[in-house]
Amino acid sequence: MTGPQIVLALDILGTVTFALNGALTASRRVRLDIVGVVALGVITATGGGMVRDLLLGAVPPAALVEWYYLAAATVGSLAAWLVARPTRGLTRMIVLLDAVGLSVFAVAGAQKASAMGLQPAPAIILGAVTAVGGGTLRDVLIGEVPSVLTNDLYAIPALVGAAVTVLAGRYDLLPFPAAILGAVLCFAIRMVGVRYGLNAPSRRVLRRARGARSDDA
Amino acid sequence: MTGPQIVLALDILGTVTFALNGALTASRRVRLDIVGVVALGVITATGGGMVRDLLLGAVPPAALVEWYYLAAATVGSLAAWLVARPTRGLTRMIVLLDAVGLSVFAVAGAQKASAMGLQPAPAIILGAVTAVGGGTLRDVLIGEVPSVLTNDLYAIPALVGAAVTVLAGRYDLLPFPAAILGAVLCFAIRMVGVRYGLNAPSRRVLRRARGARSDDA
Amino acid sequence: MTGPQIVLALDILGTVTFALNGALTASRRVRLDIVGVVALGVITATGGGMVRDLLLGAVPPAALVEWYYLAAATVGSLAAWLVARPTRGLTRMIVLLDAVGLSVFAVAGAQKASAMGLQPAPAIILGAVTAVGGGTLRDVLIGEVPSVLTNDLYAIPALVGAAVTVLAGRYDLLPFPAAILGAVLCFAIRMVGVRYGLNAPSRRVLRRARGARSDDA
Repeated sequence: MTGPQIVLALDILGTVTFALNGALTASRRVRLDIVGVVALGVITATGGGMVRDLLLGAVPPAALVEWYYLAAATVGSLAAWLVARPTRGLTRMIVLLDAVGLSVFAVAGAQKASAMGLQPAPAIILGAVTAVGGGTLRDVLIGEVPSVLTNDLYAIPALVGAAVTVLAGRYDLLPFPAAILGAVLCFAIRMVGVRYGLNAPSRRVLRRARGARSDDA
Repeated sequence: MTGPQIVLALDILGTVTFALNGALTASRRVRLDIVGVVALGVITATGGGMVRDLLLGAVPPAALVEWYYLAAATVGSLAAWLVARPTRGLTRMIVLLDAVGLSVFAVAGAQKASAMGLQPAPAIILGAVTAVGGGTLRDVLIGEVPSVLTNDLYAIPALVGAAVTVLAGRYDLLPFPAAILGAVLCFAIRMVGVRYGLNAPSRRVLRRARGARSDDA
Repeated sequence: MTGPQIVLALDILGTVTFALNGALTASRRVRLDIVGVVALGVITATGGGMVRDLLLGAVPPAALVEWYYLAAATVGSLAAWLVARPTRGLTRMIVLLDAVGLSVFAVAGAQKASAMGLQPAPAIILGAVTAVGGGTLRDVLIGEVPSVLTNDLYAIPALVGAAVTVLAGRYDLLPFPAAILGAVLCFAIRMVGVRYGLNAPSRRVLRRARGARSDDA
């Protein structure tokens, strides 16, 4: 496989996993019909890139132009519909592949924003938006506070990966290896967070927040 | 009336009804001031088309360029403010006209997306987004899980209508009659769903979901 | 200071205050990590202008092109993280500066929409969207019904300020003094509302709405 082929393969893998994970997460929270499951899976997988493309003026967004994004997202969502209750082993694999998707999306999103002329700070932000935007939209649609806002180690690895990529590209410091380094760093930080429970479960955070709310109500 | 005049009349009728229905739905859920009622009515009526236009890069969106969209949506919203508690007869008429709006929006949205060069699958999706996007935005704004995600027979007729329209246009199979067929099919499926209660009330779904949530909390 | 410098200074002041106020409001409702606080502060401060720019097709939005928007919004958000519980005096100053931001954003947003060719009604709406859109996005993200929808005297001053600006510009009635008049009117109406409690606290409205909901459930 050539470099671009590997990137494309990872991008599709990330899209399938994001859709699978997104659809499973949504189904656990709200009783959805099949349209709802597929819609939320597709939105989780493609929403971040769509927001990025809207903000860059790159319309129609890649997710509506390149057929494989919608195809991959639909496959992942339908898999979620079929699986419904993943085994522990499958859950572990999803967490792993989700971290791969996070890394690929953050780096690729930051590169696209940078290539379209954005300054480093907004390009880094759009990289992170590519990675976490879809899950944010899903959480808003199912009435949850987006877990990315209450959970340190999901946005931060995306920001780190995007920053390494953008800054190296900006100062011409071996941009291609730097992008790989950015993705690897993002993946590593995310997995360390998962391993050591640095990402406090969002349910608990939410419950506490709700407790606090009823107190001051 | 000529063909385009009929389409325009149906489009305006759909806009008024979506605004009326959207504003009534929102007012039942949250105590709103008049700005809130009009804002939510206008968003219900024009939001789906705006999202479609943003994704197509057709900006400013038609709803901000053609004066009659905002006018029709404002009229519908103010009617909701005046009516507040519709009679049973009015409710029935709103359900009927809402299905007309759903059909016109799905078909017109899909046609616009197709005409702007999108492939069939994304064009069909954008047709459905045109039809259901405004109600989705409204539900998110009033803190509800969008009923379209938990209710089979609102998105599906829109997708069917959009699909018939797009595919016929794509393969040059009498596009104009096909668009009418698409709209009629969408309307018929929706009304069959309403008649036989195939659309389970979203409140019940939500309550069940909330019950499930407190169990696993 | 020249006129444009004053406008720029007010714009930056408004951005800092919106971010500070937005991040404080969000932190009171949901337990957020630092990424969440900064993200919600930045979204509150820049979200309205971003939505306006997306709808106008002015992309990438000013908030991603002019460095001082992100910088000002980050400063305001970090200040909120440091302050956490503002004193009564600081709260008063925030309310005052927030009204300044509301006025500047409404007038500047309406002017931009008008300059890009929108008719008066949509230009006035986009002025108000510039002013209240960021807070709306924040409320949706933290799972609250946007207070602007339940609270008369936040959107109305923005609409009045935008209307005076747009209509005077449209009919060439001393556009520059009219814009100042619009901003002053917006500020005055807002502060009168604050002073006389014309803006009912949204929490109370929400609680009542929730009570009503459980009744009819």
